[in-house]
Amino acid sequence: MRTSELDTPALVVDLDVLERNIAGMAAHCDDLGIAQRVHTKTHKTPEIAKMQVAAGSRGITCQKLGEAEAMVDGGLDDILIPYNIVGKPKLARLVDLCRRARITVAVDSTDTVVGISHAADAAGIEIPLLVEMDTGSRRCGVQSPAAVTMMAQHIESSPGVAFAGVMTYPSRTSAHGFIDETVESLGSSGMDAHIISGGGTGSERASREIGCTETRSGSYAYEGMTRVGRSEDLTAERCALRMIVTIVSVPTPDRIIIDAGQKSFTSYPPTPYGHIIEQPAAKITGMSVEHGHVDTSECARHFYVGEHLSVIPLHQGMTSNLHDELVAVRGDEVEETWRIAGRGRVK
Amino acid sequence: MRTSELDTPALVVDLDVLERNIAGMAAHCDDLGIAQRVHTKTHKTPEIAKMQVAAGSRGITCQKLGEAEAMVDGGLDDILIPYNIVGKPKLARLVDLCRRARITVAVDSTDTVVGISHAADAAGIEIPLLVEMDTGSRRCGVQSPAAVTMMAQHIESSPGVAFAGVMTYPSRTSAHGFIDETVESLGSSGMDAHIISGGGTGSERASREIGCTETRSGSYAYEGMTRVGRSEDLTAERCALRMIVTIVSVPTPDRIIIDAGQKSFTSYPPTPYGHIIEQPAAKITGMSVEHGHVDTSECARHFYVGEHLSVIPLHQGMTSNLHDELVAVRGDEVEETWRIAGRGRVK
Repeated sequence: MRTSELDTPALVVDLDVLERNIAGMAAHCDDLGIAQRVHTKTHKTPEIAKMQVAAGSRGITCQKLGEAEAMVDGGLDDILIPYNIVGKPKLARLVDLCRRARITVAVDSTDTVVGISHAADAAGIEIPLLVEMDTGSRRCGVQSPAAVTMMAQHIESSPGVAFAGVMTYPSRTSAHGFIDETVESLGSSGMDAHIISGGGTGSERASREIGCTETRSGSYAYEGMTRVGRSEDLTAERCALRMIVTIVSVPTPDRIIIDAGQKSFTSYPPTPYGHIIEQPAAKITGMSVEHGHVDTSECARHFYVGEHLSVIPLHQGMTSNLHDELVAVRGDEVEETWRIAGRGRVK
Repeated sequence: MRTSELDTPALVVDLDVLERNIAGMAAHCDDLGIAQRVHTKTHKTPEIAKMQVAAGSRGITCQKLGEAEAMVDGGLDDILIPYNIVGKPKLARLVDLCRRARITVAVDSTDTVVGISHAADAAGIEIPLLVEMDTGSRRCGVQSPAAVTMMAQHIESSPGVAFAGVMTYPSRTSAHGFIDETVESLGSSGMDAHIISGGGTGSERASREIGCTETRSGSYAYEGMTRVGRSEDLTAERCALRMIVTIVSVPTPDRIIIDAGQKSFTSYPPTPYGHIIEQPAAKITGMSVEHGHVDTSECARHFYVGEHLSVIPLHQGMTSNLHDELVAVRGDEVEETWRIAGRGRVK
């Protein structure tokens, strides 16, 4: 099948670009001497996670338990969940998942440790835990190196759990002091942070410099080694994800309407929304829920109802979360269609 | 089952509020003397669409063919698709759907008319078409009353399709002249706009005043008869949709983190993001993909990891598109769990 035969909007991954991005990050991390534990938030697709593991990633990262379940169902077996698992339904699911794969979980409170400890102990298993550190992002995480050590001691004294190390997000050089103090504090209490996990595409060097043992880079798979945010970053050579759309209306000579809006691209995306590969001068100026509004006044040609265009989305990870299927293409040929198995796993 | 036992984030509809909103809009339209053709974009759930039809709506509106398919699968049988259906795969699906239910489609170009005409004629069926008018919103739609009449004549002279009327969005009083001229122009060509379809919750009176025969109001089901956009609109009496979330981290005394962010609530939602029913003084100040950041500095009490909170989302329709299931509750009791069958139907 050729891409021109696809029903639209069709979310498509360019395999040549994807493979180049995956190989590029693997080589970059090898050069730096830091291990990869790729974050799957960007693609949510087991087939791509397996390509990343085959390229050298020591395992994967899933932000939610439900995404980890989807990845284990898809054949992945070593997953970090950098998220506090809280509440009876989730603890039961966590224990089930730990029986099927090697699962490591991050925690930042004694309440979370107690919950996981009780559930794991009752099930007769041991779950490795990382302590999440707030090194400046003001999201989750304990607030000081001393608090990390107290949490680690609490974990070590609790049944069903084991202290495996620490994590932070994102990796910034300003975290150097926090991490050094943490390692020292743990050492003076006779403990060792076997894993020091950092994250964020583009921060691999910073992760290495502040002492991380692994990086949870994710968005690079679709975006190369930059964070997409400006029009000039949205190039077909760098970005693996596209959405093939159809022009459904040409109401005036300077305006076309495409069949994808916020429901396909994400809600309230800021400009530039996305980049139209075939017609870079055509600018997406707005999106309602099901319509994309495109200004074609700077284009030299006329557009027709029924034409396809290929748009590189600005927010590639969130866009993946809106689609059930991902079409894997090479050039204009469809190779496979993958289910985005991790899509919508909010729990 | 009680709501306190739900795994989170759980998207929940309060049936008492939903029923009140549905009955309220039905009475409002009865008073105005305008028919309802409710828009299902807000809930995407056949069970709710059936409640709206039972309350008097003459049928439903689905913005995309895929949502209409989901609604027909769910038992609905009279659907307007106010969207240009373009391209071979969609035309084949449209013909299939027309064999199962009464489907009306809006068009704004001869290209779209030709496509539908050929497909319907080849299948031996006739599809009623509305001509979409651009009465000022600058999205889709023909640009003048004369263009409506030309399009209507084209439809009437084409096999497999029938001119059934006109539509616009949203209904504004400024459209009065356009619609009057259109009716006159059609009349002088011996044609009649049997259906004049307007849309937008809150514009029912305007729809009536400018001569519409029906209103495609939709968001009222979850939001009552206002458009939610300000904190004071987000009240538990008016808004039927809630998300039950869990506090997963209390990293500092003035900040809590809930287990729902952009992936559950929508991407890049503007403030106020949502309203926390139990603790209105707690303000959602930011959202990353999987975390909601809440400032509790104005709250008199302490919060604990594992506590549930109920959040009214700001963008109720887009939020529905992110969840597979909707839990129907009355008070604290779960009555049913519905599949959001129209979710993710981008095609």
